[in-house]
Amino acid sequence: MSGAVLIVSGPSGAGKSTIIRSASCCIGEFYFSISTTTREPREGEQEGVDYYFVDKGSFEKEIEAGGFLEYALVHGNYYGTALEPVRRALKDGKLVIFDIDVQGHRIARKSLGRIVTSIFITPPTLSELKRRLESRASDDKETIRRRIESAEREIQDIGKYDFVIVNDELEKAVDSFVSIAKAARMKMGEDEIEEFVRKWRGR
Amino acid sequence: MSGAVLIVSGPSGAGKSTIIRSASCCIGEFYFSISTTTREPREGEQEGVDYYFVDKGSFEKEIEAGGFLEYALVHGNYYGTALEPVRRALKDGKLVIFDIDVQGHRIARKSLGRIVTSIFITPPTLSELKRRLESRASDDKETIRRRIESAEREIQDIGKYDFVIVNDELEKAVDSFVSIAKAARMKMGEDEIEEFVRKWRGR
Repeated sequence: MSGAVLIVSGPSGAGKSTIIRSASCCIGEFYFSISTTTREPREGEQEGVDYYFVDKGSFEKEIEAGGFLEYALVHGNYYGTALEPVRRALKDGKLVIFDIDVQGHRIARKSLGRIVTSIFITPPTLSELKRRLESRASDDKETIRRRIESAEREIQDIGKYDFVIVNDELEKAVDSFVSIAKAARMKMGEDEIEEFVRKWRGR
Repeated sequence: MSGAVLIVSGPSGAGKSTIIRSASCCIGEFYFSISTTTREPREGEQEGVDYYFVDKGSFEKEIEAGGFLEYALVHGNYYGTALEPVRRALKDGKLVIFDIDVQGHRIARKSLGRIVTSIFITPPTLSELKRRLESRASDDKETIRRRIESAEREIQDIGKYDFVIVNDELEKAVDSFVSIAKAARMKMGEDEIEEFVRKWRGR
C-alpha cells in the first residue's frame, strides 16, 4: 500500500505537538512534514526540527519553481510545505503528518486528493484556550492576542475537517489521535485504487 | 458528543461479519443496524438477529410512509434499513454500524451527511474470493455465481469509500477496523458543529 496523509490543524495552545509526540510511539512509521519559513528562529528553535529557516529571496524562488505544496504569507512572513520530501515519503509508503493551518489544509487537500485525512484539534472552549496561552511563560501579550484572533477565525472551518478532537483530557485525545492516524493509512489514492482493482481481477 | 455512523460494505465472503464480531469487544458501545427483508429466512437465520423478516405488503407500506433510510429490490426481494432505530441510537450518542451494499452506501451517505465514515472490506483478489465462497458448504453454485457477479460490480465503487481494508490477514484487518471505528466517533454532524462552536465561544 502506498502512503497517505494526515493533516492536523488547530489553534496554538490546543495541544497538537503534545498529542502528536505522545502518539508517535503507536502509529507506525510516519514522516512529520517540517515547514519552511522566512521568519526568524525563536529561542530554542532548531533548523530542520522546528522549521527550515530560509531567507525571503530563496523562498520566493522556490514558489516560482512550483516547489511548495502550499504556502502562505502570515504577518509578513512566509510559511510553506516543500513538495519534494512529501513526495518521497509517500512513495516510500509512509504516513505523512502535516501540522498546518486551515488555509494550508484547504490547499493541501485540493492537491493531494483522497489520500488525505484531516483532524482539527481544539481546546474545549475559547476561555480555556486563553487560560492555556496566558499560563505559558513564553508568549507576550501581543502574540497571545494574535493567536486568540486566529483561533476565533479558524474555529469556523472546523466543518471542513474529517475528524474533530476536543482536547479536554490529554490521554483520551492521544487515544483518538492514534485511532485516526492508524485509520488514515487505510486510504487509497486514485491510482492505487485503479491498480488494486486491476490486480484484484487478476489482470 | 452525538452519534456517528460507520458503513461497512464488501462482497459476501470478504469476512465482514467475522471482522465486525472480532472487533466488537474493542470499539465502545455501538448499535448494529439490522436490515429488514422480504426474502425467506435461510436455515439458522434468526428474526431480529440476522434480519427483520416481513412480507412484501408491509415493506411497501413502510416505503410509502418514508420509514426507510435506504432500501433496494435485489433478485426480487426487498432489503432496507428502518430509519427509526437508527435515529434513536444516534440520539443516544451511539456509533451505528451498517452492513449494506454499495447502493445502500450511496443513499445512506447522502441522507446522513458528514457523520458517515465508510469502509469497503475486500478479499485480496477475485480468485481468493472464489476460493472462499466455494469452500463454504452452505452455498449452491447459482448463489456463488451471483455473489461473484455482484463482487465484480461492487469493486468498481471502492473509490467512493473513505477507507479500504484488504482482508488477507484477519488479525490485521480487525485491528484496522477497530481504528477506523474509533475514529468514526470523532465525526461531528452539521448541527453538532454549530452547537459546539457556539458553546466554544461561550455564547
